[in-house]
Amino acid sequence: MSLSAEVICVGTELLLGDILNTNAQFLAQQLAQLGIPHYYQTVVGDNPLRLKKVLAIACERSRLIILTGGLGPTPDDLTIETLADFFDVPLVEHPEILEDITQKYARRGRQMSPSNRKQALLPEGAEVLPNSSGSAPGVIWQPRTGLTILTFPGVPSEMQLMWQETAVPYLRQQGWGQEIIHSRMLKFWGIAESALAEKVAPFLDLSNPTVAPYANHGEVKLRIAARAESEAIARQLIEPVEHQLRQIGGLDYYGADEDSLASVVGEHLQTAHETLGTAESCTGGGLGQMLTSIPGSSNYFMGGVISYDNQAKISLLGVNAQDLAQHGAVSHTIAKQMAAGVRSRLGTTWGLSITGIAGPGGGTASKPVGLVYIGLAGPQDEIESYEYQFGSFRGRSWIQRISACTALDQLRRKLLTRSLLEDLAF
Amino acid sequence: MSLSAEVICVGTELLLGDILNTNAQFLAQQLAQLGIPHYYQTVVGDNPLRLKKVLAIACERSRLIILTGGLGPTPDDLTIETLADFFDVPLVEHPEILEDITQKYARRGRQMSPSNRKQALLPEGAEVLPNSSGSAPGVIWQPRTGLTILTFPGVPSEMQLMWQETAVPYLRQQGWGQEIIHSRMLKFWGIAESALAEKVAPFLDLSNPTVAPYANHGEVKLRIAARAESEAIARQLIEPVEHQLRQIGGLDYYGADEDSLASVVGEHLQTAHETLGTAESCTGGGLGQMLTSIPGSSNYFMGGVISYDNQAKISLLGVNAQDLAQHGAVSHTIAKQMAAGVRSRLGTTWGLSITGIAGPGGGTASKPVGLVYIGLAGPQDEIESYEYQFGSFRGRSWIQRISACTALDQLRRKLLTRSLLEDLAF
Repeated sequence: MSLSAEVICVGTELLLGDILNTNAQFLAQQLAQLGIPHYYQTVVGDNPLRLKKVLAIACERSRLIILTGGLGPTPDDLTIETLADFFDVPLVEHPEILEDITQKYARRGRQMSPSNRKQALLPEGAEVLPNSSGSAPGVIWQPRTGLTILTFPGVPSEMQLMWQETAVPYLRQQGWGQEIIHSRMLKFWGIAESALAEKVAPFLDLSNPTVAPYANHGEVKLRIAARAESEAIARQLIEPVEHQLRQIGGLDYYGADEDSLASVVGEHLQTAHETLGTAESCTGGGLGQMLTSIPGSSNYFMGGVISYDNQAKISLLGVNAQDLAQHGAVSHTIAKQMAAGVRSRLGTTWGLSITGIAGPGGGTASKPVGLVYIGLAGPQDEIESYEYQFGSFRGRSWIQRISACTALDQLRRKLLTRSLLEDLAF
Repeated sequence: MSLSAEVICVGTELLLGDILNTNAQFLAQQLAQLGIPHYYQTVVGDNPLRLKKVLAIACERSRLIILTGGLGPTPDDLTIETLADFFDVPLVEHPEILEDITQKYARRGRQMSPSNRKQALLPEGAEVLPNSSGSAPGVIWQPRTGLTILTFPGVPSEMQLMWQETAVPYLRQQGWGQEIIHSRMLKFWGIAESALAEKVAPFLDLSNPTVAPYANHGEVKLRIAARAESEAIARQLIEPVEHQLRQIGGLDYYGADEDSLASVVGEHLQTAHETLGTAESCTGGGLGQMLTSIPGSSNYFMGGVISYDNQAKISLLGVNAQDLAQHGAVSHTIAKQMAAGVRSRLGTTWGLSITGIAGPGGGTASKPVGLVYIGLAGPQDEIESYEYQFGSFRGRSWIQRISACTALDQLRRKLLTRSLLEDLAF
């Protein structure tokens, strides 16, 4: 049995999918930060028999068991009774808990109901884990040598406060979490997970720090996680690995941790005192939305046009009606005219455009769903356009999202390459 | 061993708290809807030894084991190998999977990397559970009599599609889920959860169907869930309750299930053969994005202007520069001019505008963060505007989202009231 922790979330509402298990994620993050290994999480309903089976399994493989849920006053809240029964000890009433609950109700102008009385019962030998914001206290209990049990209510805000106020100091004092885990997430765009994993393959075998790939929504990430006595030492372990991985990633690497494509583009523009305007067709405002999700984006993002209909392309962007008829709205020609049009109308340094077919309807043999053109007009009146085939199989909202991200990425690469060149200071 | 299902989510990222386990909630909801009992959920890392221990436990207590995660192409994706090892059968390469993956990569203009090859390996005797949107297929496998295993990738969109397309029909055909739960989600805007719950209080005590309130992101929902032998019978139980709840909800009720404010507005516009243009400041494209998330929105949404900077308000919408200086961009006057401006420039039936302060910066004592004006210009050249104080405490993206939804809701109420009047056919 290893010195590891295990999380058991008790609640039939979790098994019905009525609520999302945010408690499990919170505890997982906290245990990782404390450097306490944690290999299993279990969800079980408010059922004494099944909870006892889960406890039997957990006691065999973990030294710290953290339970959430089932501490309330209603008849289906059975965690404490079940624990006492499982370890075969009686329940003992704690007058100080009863007093505390009575006062909390009084402060809210309510009377404690008789059912709350059971919340003052704890297994013999267990200590109170105080709940400063709600009525149900938890327990800190060592029912056997080398086995610690902590219980929390299922309400996330109460659980989190109790964890921070009491559980963390207690665990530290008991010698848990001598080492912490610190991590950094590197983010890449324009490369598949498998291709990046192959490029960095030898790094995936490192043991401290570890490197692991993740992918979602077209973005690929590498998580570097170091285990050390302190965050400062962990950072020292991470730094050289991060440097190498960024080298390997090249232009595909775009940022770390809280960075997004929109925030990185924003930093480049702000540094260069440049501005941006957008012209969107198939993304319908999604590109503008990403840009303006960044606080302070008004410093560089002047605005844009959602030229969803062809008439809007003509009236708001000055796209040529003949070209529209000849090439179609989804074409290199129109992408370029949209980018140049918004740049000139808003007087911005850059104009960035997207026109494509998000589907599900509107595709043809020569212009299928998922065909997208991105246009970029720049400070020397240069205009470029790029063609993408995103395919139809992932659906409309995926195409819209990936198109907006890809447009941002094109501008990012342009700005990055330029700044790298400028750094040479010829 | 009962005829119940069990969910095992595989992924070290879950144990580190890097991601929230939305897959477990989705599967829990789905199993509840199918009426398949489900008593345990387990999370375990990408570790063959520990996964085997979890499998051993699951096989003892459940007849249907649903696994998510660990099907990717990287070396730490080990679910399939571990399953084959656990049940002591060899892995077999499926050429049709290899072909499918190759084609998917080709369609995106990429080459399959050698590491993807392992995704074509399945345990001997297992059938392919096709993945129409991603590369990793799952398996449908009965490694022993009376034990069924389903595997899914960890990517929620892929997993959900595979579940709906293949797993549900398979399970139904195998006789799982004799009694089903059918539910309907009624959606409301412009009323607080507590206020709605009080209005419908007696309904919350019903037993079949049950009625339960939910709230998130400013939206309030009532879930009506009926248990019955068939969906048809469940619908009969739900229908009269739904009718009453909609009566009580009045104009605050806007739709059910897949309906969104944007889709409902779209239906009204399409029915009336009318069109819409938008002018957005603080939402930066979020309103356009919501409208264009609806397939077919090009039938009524002509486009819009993201007039983030004041200059864009003047040049693209014809907002009066003097009024801007006098009243400020965040005002009734400018909201009205933006709505009228986009309506006249795009020649649409309706013009809808948003101008406000999303924060965190930019607020003043008289115009605090969270102050938002919505303008609506209509077919008889009528122009209205509305003021909202959304407060700053929930943050920028919340203000942006709630502003866009509120704008849609204003237009929805206008269109709904008109159509109710028209139904009278005076």
